[in-house]
Amino acid sequence: MENSTLKAFIPLFYLVWSDDLLTEKEFSTLKNFITSQSWLSKKDQELMLSKLDAKNPPSRVVLNSWKAEIEAVLSLNPTVKSTSEIAILLSDNNQAIKNNHIEFLKLENDLGFSGDEIIADFSKESNSFTSNQAASSSFEIEKLTEILDGEQAPIIKKVKSIISQPVFAYETSTDTAVYREKVFEWCKILAKENLGNMAYPTEYGGGDNIADYFAIMETLSYHDLSLVIKFGVQFGLWGMSVHSLGTEKHYAKYLRDIGSLKLPGCFAMTETNHGSNVKGMETTATYNHETKTFTIHTPHPKAQKEYIGNAAVHGQMATVFAKLIIGETDYGVNAFIVPIRDSNSIVLKGVTINDCGLKMGLNGVDNGTISFNQVVIPKENMLDRFASVNENGEFESPIPSDNRRFFTMLGTLVGGRIGIPRSALAAAKSGLAIAIRYSDKRRQFGPEGGSEVPILNYRIHQRRLLPLLAKTYATHFALKYVTKRFMVRTEIEMPEIEALAAGMKAYSTWSTTAILQECREACGGKAYLSENRIDALKNDTEVYTTFEGDNTVLMQLVAKNRLSEFRKSFGKMDTMGIIQYVYGNAKTAISEKNPIATRKTDAEHLMDEKFHLSAFQYREKTTLASAAKRLKKLIDGGLEPYDAFNVVQHQMIDVAQAYLERIVLEQFQLAIKTIADKEVKAILVKVYQLYALSQIEKNKGWYLEDGYMEAVKTKAIRKMVNQLCWDIRPEAVALVKAFDIPDSCLAAPIAF
Amino acid sequence: MENSTLKAFIPLFYLVWSDDLLTEKEFSTLKNFITSQSWLSKKDQELMLSKLDAKNPPSRVVLNSWKAEIEAVLSLNPTVKSTSEIAILLSDNNQAIKNNHIEFLKLENDLGFSGDEIIADFSKESNSFTSNQAASSSFEIEKLTEILDGEQAPIIKKVKSIISQPVFAYETSTDTAVYREKVFEWCKILAKENLGNMAYPTEYGGGDNIADYFAIMETLSYHDLSLVIKFGVQFGLWGMSVHSLGTEKHYAKYLRDIGSLKLPGCFAMTETNHGSNVKGMETTATYNHETKTFTIHTPHPKAQKEYIGNAAVHGQMATVFAKLIIGETDYGVNAFIVPIRDSNSIVLKGVTINDCGLKMGLNGVDNGTISFNQVVIPKENMLDRFASVNENGEFESPIPSDNRRFFTMLGTLVGGRIGIPRSALAAAKSGLAIAIRYSDKRRQFGPEGGSEVPILNYRIHQRRLLPLLAKTYATHFALKYVTKRFMVRTEIEMPEIEALAAGMKAYSTWSTTAILQECREACGGKAYLSENRIDALKNDTEVYTTFEGDNTVLMQLVAKNRLSEFRKSFGKMDTMGIIQYVYGNAKTAISEKNPIATRKTDAEHLMDEKFHLSAFQYREKTTLASAAKRLKKLIDGGLEPYDAFNVVQHQMIDVAQAYLERIVLEQFQLAIKTIADKEVKAILVKVYQLYALSQIEKNKGWYLEDGYMEAVKTKAIRKMVNQLCWDIRPEAVALVKAFDIPDSCLAAPIAF
Repeated sequence: MENSTLKAFIPLFYLVWSDDLLTEKEFSTLKNFITSQSWLSKKDQELMLSKLDAKNPPSRVVLNSWKAEIEAVLSLNPTVKSTSEIAILLSDNNQAIKNNHIEFLKLENDLGFSGDEIIADFSKESNSFTSNQAASSSFEIEKLTEILDGEQAPIIKKVKSIISQPVFAYETSTDTAVYREKVFEWCKILAKENLGNMAYPTEYGGGDNIADYFAIMETLSYHDLSLVIKFGVQFGLWGMSVHSLGTEKHYAKYLRDIGSLKLPGCFAMTETNHGSNVKGMETTATYNHETKTFTIHTPHPKAQKEYIGNAAVHGQMATVFAKLIIGETDYGVNAFIVPIRDSNSIVLKGVTINDCGLKMGLNGVDNGTISFNQVVIPKENMLDRFASVNENGEFESPIPSDNRRFFTMLGTLVGGRIGIPRSALAAAKSGLAIAIRYSDKRRQFGPEGGSEVPILNYRIHQRRLLPLLAKTYATHFALKYVTKRFMVRTEIEMPEIEALAAGMKAYSTWSTTAILQECREACGGKAYLSENRIDALKNDTEVYTTFEGDNTVLMQLVAKNRLSEFRKSFGKMDTMGIIQYVYGNAKTAISEKNPIATRKTDAEHLMDEKFHLSAFQYREKTTLASAAKRLKKLIDGGLEPYDAFNVVQHQMIDVAQAYLERIVLEQFQLAIKTIADKEVKAILVKVYQLYALSQIEKNKGWYLEDGYMEAVKTKAIRKMVNQLCWDIRPEAVALVKAFDIPDSCLAAPIAF
Repeated sequence: MENSTLKAFIPLFYLVWSDDLLTEKEFSTLKNFITSQSWLSKKDQELMLSKLDAKNPPSRVVLNSWKAEIEAVLSLNPTVKSTSEIAILLSDNNQAIKNNHIEFLKLENDLGFSGDEIIADFSKESNSFTSNQAASSSFEIEKLTEILDGEQAPIIKKVKSIISQPVFAYETSTDTAVYREKVFEWCKILAKENLGNMAYPTEYGGGDNIADYFAIMETLSYHDLSLVIKFGVQFGLWGMSVHSLGTEKHYAKYLRDIGSLKLPGCFAMTETNHGSNVKGMETTATYNHETKTFTIHTPHPKAQKEYIGNAAVHGQMATVFAKLIIGETDYGVNAFIVPIRDSNSIVLKGVTINDCGLKMGLNGVDNGTISFNQVVIPKENMLDRFASVNENGEFESPIPSDNRRFFTMLGTLVGGRIGIPRSALAAAKSGLAIAIRYSDKRRQFGPEGGSEVPILNYRIHQRRLLPLLAKTYATHFALKYVTKRFMVRTEIEMPEIEALAAGMKAYSTWSTTAILQECREACGGKAYLSENRIDALKNDTEVYTTFEGDNTVLMQLVAKNRLSEFRKSFGKMDTMGIIQYVYGNAKTAISEKNPIATRKTDAEHLMDEKFHLSAFQYREKTTLASAAKRLKKLIDGGLEPYDAFNVVQHQMIDVAQAYLERIVLEQFQLAIKTIADKEVKAILVKVYQLYALSQIEKNKGWYLEDGYMEAVKTKAIRKMVNQLCWDIRPEAVALVKAFDIPDSCLAAPIAF
């Protein structure tokens, strides 16, 4: 094509033949354009149309020569902004082309081209700022680790050094029997190191240190989670049930052997037909006064104990929960120590144990079912801290109500609802460490003329992982708080602490499930390979949302606790009372819901922790007051309370969620205030802000519906979340390194 | 307590001692109340305080006698509404108690009691309507099945009868080698039944029926998903790559043996370093004109082919994608048939194969890595439909652009992006069938005095499962539509169909992941046991969101396609143009965003399919116009297009999501219109409404932010979603039975 007019068409010809999205339709558009340009001679038009013949495409050589011509023009004229400018330059500033500049621009639009994008496609060198983001750290990682570990640093260090030993190399056999034995051996090593009995009284060989026990559970969770659960079943559920529900005689007889793992045991509460509604269990313990014994019995197959850890292979005894029957009277659920195997692991007479078989995860734990056929145990095997049978064969208890006694017993076991969310937290940290470290190195796509870019530089990838990293930090501090509340608990605080622990169990385990799902997807096919450990982390923690209380059921409990607190304060629930409750006092009400506040979008305000706390508290109080009002209305309207609670179940979840989110936010704020190191504080403030704003963003539908925020504000928050992700991205690797997970535990090849 | 005044206190004494939530604080409240009542004598006060001594609780017998007294009063006075009314009755209408009625009510509040709840706790018989919900069916299940199966009913029936044979009993071994062989054997049976070659031309033994092929893939997915993927790798990826990219000589040589599974093969595209950005692959095929051969070579370890199905054990050949090099010139990616094993399964010289090892799921498929060390293949092994090397050793192609040729090649393989979402759909159906059937039978908790209630009667449980059931029905019809579009495609429609298939692949697979997660949690511990199959369904489909294109990347492609369409229509993007585009025309604009419409909440309007379609379309168009405007602004402001696209990635996902949701809604509407049977139509309309409204509810933040709806409307929609869940619940079991999944495939004991 020598004709300078024709040369102007080179960019268009090149683009229609090379673009992978263009179709016949665009060819027609271009053809019509050519034939409609009266300033082009018929001959020129025909020549040009011949270049657009689908049956006779230009050769690859011709296509490349067009490309070379365009590139030559661009390298001489770096400020060019559109294909029509290229056209003019290629045509040696032909006046006809110049005159038809607008026509060319319109054509570009009709073809769906964007000038800048096309020019970028030709550029030899990229100036993209997306490409330039890279990992760096503004703070000393060790200092952050110190803050995270806190007072438990020595025991955490000890546990890490143990699980980093070669004997703790992950088991890779798919043979369940092999895996279970390996986990059992690991438990023995931990017992030998006096980790299992850490929470037991010193007089029985224990460490009398429940805080360290929780830290052990959490730190072990960087390693195999079957190990954690097996450990928890033996030393937590089995041992602590003896310790919490039994008395001196039981401690003396059993605690040392439980702590040393000489006496492996089970915690047999759940039955097939009664999981969440455990109060309805049907196993019986019938007292026989002549022989001073109890007969433990499973009345029908679906009353068997199910999912019992340590049952299928190793357990020799079990704490069995059963309804105590004396004469004709049912005294409600009590706990009994029942031998199930002899020391040679032979299942005892009257006991039937079945293996639960393959599970989604935790296959290193030997879960089984247990049924009892008139199994007789001596009277002293009743765990008698809260109830007993006296010398006359009469029932005795300091707690007269069977219901209340059962929940008091459960209350002593609330520690499990702290151990599990902390284990879940550690699993989330492992997942994020693997995903973020990989995303920082894995490169895919990039600007034309530039090299491929780490996938963590992509905004959507940041959006997927970094708010979850922030949430993990937030949850860390909240779980520290729950642990502390549990340790210094008084009886009067118990209902609140039980609700808090139940709620944080749900919060943390749901969070972990969501985080590991995102980590799996964010790492693509690599995360599907078991060697990269997202598999195990995900499948092992999958049941965390179910055991120690189904999350949805727990959230209802949390909400009921909140409601009962609320009723105490606002029994009458008149409108003014509720308004005062929600806003703290009338003055704040006016200042918070006025048009200026609902629309305030300056960065200082959006980043202000007071704004966050107000917003979280407002949501907490409003959802609570609204659920309470609704319930009252339904019941006043004649609904049975059971039906009324069912109608508002969805709102109850909101009540619990809002309460937990406020707790988590508040504890993150308080934790940051105690940090002295300036750099660590600065990065944690950013992480905190990302948590706060991404939670508000998640709940924006609620805030908009309520009128607490207007659209202009929720939009500004979304933008700020994006910005915070971008700002935190360079520090993300340092932030996961601060978890200080041993390399041998992290193990995933993609993390290194 | 004989004194009638004192008797009035029985309900309070009973409650504080039996309630499991009360603490010391409530005891104090009650004590203070007693001492503050001046009408009580000091002696009476002391007597009463003695009943509240924590150190000296009432006996169980006393507690039960109190309970009996209360129950006696209640059975005689069924209309009683509060504990203070009971107090009056117990006191034989003592005047002092009557006079202090208000004080008693206030005390109840202070203690956090709700009268009705307490009364309900005593009731002997429940009238709860929650308890009474049960499964029933208003329609003939077989008729709905017929509609779902449509024209493919005969092949679906055939496949079901094959996979219900005893030989297709699920493999339970955890030994991967055993599992892989079993799956391979199953594939051979399917090949013998002429299912594998269903889509191949009849002249090579095939059925020439791509619609049936997709139905086979979907129906097989009720069975083991490793089988589906192995089947898809062999007959879909390997066979169809030969069919789509090769020519007659390849068909004649290979198709029969591929279809009969005599020649197992692989589809070797993905490399370790290039998954999503597959265009960047580094394997080379260098042409040698003297010998008329290509040399296939892996330049470095991370350029190995990875995750290749059939590679680790069974594959004998592979379609290998590699950059064609002739002389010094790189002609872009082309496809070649490369032998990798001989017929005795010995790996050939120059080929290195490693096993991908254990995976999260799909362990019946033998994925592996393949590297080539200067492997020489004859010239005729180039799949030469789109490019070839001529007799002179020169490159020839009807598509001059390397880029465009590669995407044209990929375009012919778009069928995989229809097979996978349909397989995902079947897995979701299986999960829902298991979870809903179990939830209909599983009972837990119940009203006081009533028996336990099926968990599907709980609102929150309905909320968890039923909108997902609706979404599954919606997705069913949308995937039928995509299949049909693909079957009657013309070249001009290809970009749209490719985007549609890519988008629906993401939509359906993400949906399945979410559904199976919810099914797992909704079935509690039972779903954690592998025997109940949620395990396999969940873990096998987990990688569906990654393979055949990472979902997040695909969504960006969909959005880019939408943007390029949009640009063609609204190149200039002036404000009026955009408004016209979004609203269709100015008149609708006025009527849709006026205050009446944004607040309209009557049931007729909320259930109106026109309202739904308008709302979905409005969101689709607005997100698109807004992303386009934002992109333009960023680029005009000087950002490199690559950076600009990165900044708007989050919006791009919205654009794609909104587009897909509109498609799914529209196809559900159209499908219902064609249904003749009145009862089936009626239930599907309800299911449709639940889909439509639950999607709007999910996006309520967006609608509120935009101003298209106001709070009063989104609240009404939430209420309607609850109501629809409640209404559909009785039919839920029938709705999953209509999927007609063979019992032997469903298999989960909890489903029966």
